[in-house]
Amino acid sequence: MVNIESLGERKIIETILRFLDAMPNMPIPFGDDVSAIPIEGDRVVVVKVDMLVGRTDVPPGMSLRQAARKAIVMNVSDFAAKGVKPLAALVSLGLPRGLTEWDVKEIGLGLSEGAKEYGIYIVGGDTNEAQDLIVDCAMIGLGDRRKIIRRSGARPGDILAVTGYFGRTSLGLKILLEGLSPPENLRKTLVEPVLMPRARLKEGLILAELGALTASIDSSDGLAWSLYEISEASQVGFRIEKVPVAPEVEEFAKEYELNPIELSLYGGEEYELVVTVKPELWKKSEEKLREIGCQLIEIGRAIEERRIEVRVNGKYQIVERRGWEHFKSARQRLN
Amino acid sequence: MVNIESLGERKIIETILRFLDAMPNMPIPFGDDVSAIPIEGDRVVVVKVDMLVGRTDVPPGMSLRQAARKAIVMNVSDFAAKGVKPLAALVSLGLPRGLTEWDVKEIGLGLSEGAKEYGIYIVGGDTNEAQDLIVDCAMIGLGDRRKIIRRSGARPGDILAVTGYFGRTSLGLKILLEGLSPPENLRKTLVEPVLMPRARLKEGLILAELGALTASIDSSDGLAWSLYEISEASQVGFRIEKVPVAPEVEEFAKEYELNPIELSLYGGEEYELVVTVKPELWKKSEEKLREIGCQLIEIGRAIEERRIEVRVNGKYQIVERRGWEHFKSARQRLN
Repeated sequence: MVNIESLGERKIIETILRFLDAMPNMPIPFGDDVSAIPIEGDRVVVVKVDMLVGRTDVPPGMSLRQAARKAIVMNVSDFAAKGVKPLAALVSLGLPRGLTEWDVKEIGLGLSEGAKEYGIYIVGGDTNEAQDLIVDCAMIGLGDRRKIIRRSGARPGDILAVTGYFGRTSLGLKILLEGLSPPENLRKTLVEPVLMPRARLKEGLILAELGALTASIDSSDGLAWSLYEISEASQVGFRIEKVPVAPEVEEFAKEYELNPIELSLYGGEEYELVVTVKPELWKKSEEKLREIGCQLIEIGRAIEERRIEVRVNGKYQIVERRGWEHFKSARQRLN
Repeated sequence: MVNIESLGERKIIETILRFLDAMPNMPIPFGDDVSAIPIEGDRVVVVKVDMLVGRTDVPPGMSLRQAARKAIVMNVSDFAAKGVKPLAALVSLGLPRGLTEWDVKEIGLGLSEGAKEYGIYIVGGDTNEAQDLIVDCAMIGLGDRRKIIRRSGARPGDILAVTGYFGRTSLGLKILLEGLSPPENLRKTLVEPVLMPRARLKEGLILAELGALTASIDSSDGLAWSLYEISEASQVGFRIEKVPVAPEVEEFAKEYELNPIELSLYGGEEYELVVTVKPELWKKSEEKLREIGCQLIEIGRAIEERRIEVRVNGKYQIVERRGWEHFKSARQRLN
């Protein structure tokens, strides 16, 4: 009998989905970043659940306060990608015996910080005993079904863009897990985004408001993985002219003889937006994000052919479908 | 430093709540069975999260299919108590390594069964690796803030009623945990409600539609505990004339020298509704539930004095505030 480690997260989800009836006239298909439930007309309730598990999502060096905050940020990031403002959250906790009242306070503080940063109220929850630390967040917003940015709308010719540079969290995790000790200022820049990730909520809301995006996803499972998700949902390919490698990653990679492209494409735990932009709204989009201090970086174009290729040293090579996947990835990552 | 086992679930929740800002004009206060988020006017999104954890919520003898189904039922029961129809659910799974594809199918089947029984669609979810089995369900419905039955509306003179007899699950759990072997037909009647609990959704919706209830809660943490919750939220007491002990519980208790009143008051995992009914709508309420095969059982009255007393052998005695509480109860229950 096949065990779940070899099945992997995606196959597990497919297996379960086979038993479930789809809601008729479902506003957003299964597998997109959020779900939606019709209210009336085009109005929908937008909902997302995303569970943080201590053993796989909390690297050494991350405090309980940071872990609780991250559970909120993870969910906000998916709302950001869909261009929907989250309003409220409910939090289910699984707490291992042995935690203290102090730990519980840290968790309360982290939840509160995350919620305040994004203007969300926590309106309920549930507390349980569990062997792992579990912080499972259900986030709720209201949206218009016509305006939610799906993964499926990219068309050949659209500009492929991201809201930031990549590779920092790959290295940050490496530092935390393998105990590497780069110079302190470099360490901070690389570890900070792992411990205190930020969701691109303002950016996502602005881009959605402009009507500039044809598809969008966040990069929490890695840039390459996100591109494959859009590619499959939209039935397009991508030609990437330049991998958006963060300068610190170039620097660190050189010193430790690592491949910066590899680190940037196949990481994870990065909460940038990966979007396809209507070419006629590119300038406007870039400008509007610049106003809030975010650089929208063009990295390539959507193409008709269903392949994802990237130019490295003047030659196009195929991007692999690799990234973070629960069960399959967990062992090598945090064990 | 105080550890969470001695804090207990309620204190943990209080500790966390101290860090959170309350949503202004929150339609339902923290601590009621569901949460609500305003849409516009009196329209609200009703949401509930309730996490099932293998070690504390799945007794020996319960299959994965039954456990997954129970995770749905637990949430439906809270909607039932509030008189709100649930529409959709999202399910976060934590799966221990070692489960097989077959186990995943069982979980899919159980979720599907639970959802179909109550006319709910599962519209999304999240899958993770965890040491415990976790089935965390976020359930969503739409409601009118004026019509949601809170815990807080009971007034002295209201009729205290329940939708069924109590004590079966206390004994069912005892049978599963301690391996008692009563006659097969008795065993089935007592174990069945533990393995295949049913939520009183139709009953709750009918009573809410009638406008008959002043307060309502489900009895998942035990009858006594539920009464204390209503008592505190409504600032009333209760005088119970007769504990609604199930006939099989009387029978079994006699044979095993157990106290049937004790089993019925201080159990848990029972999904009956505990409601206070406007006296002028009592007859109508009883009739309407009889039409769908449910007996609404009057067990006492709400009183002005803030105590909960029960008549046993002709004498009133105080009901203790005891029932199922995570962390505090878990060790003695399922360990």
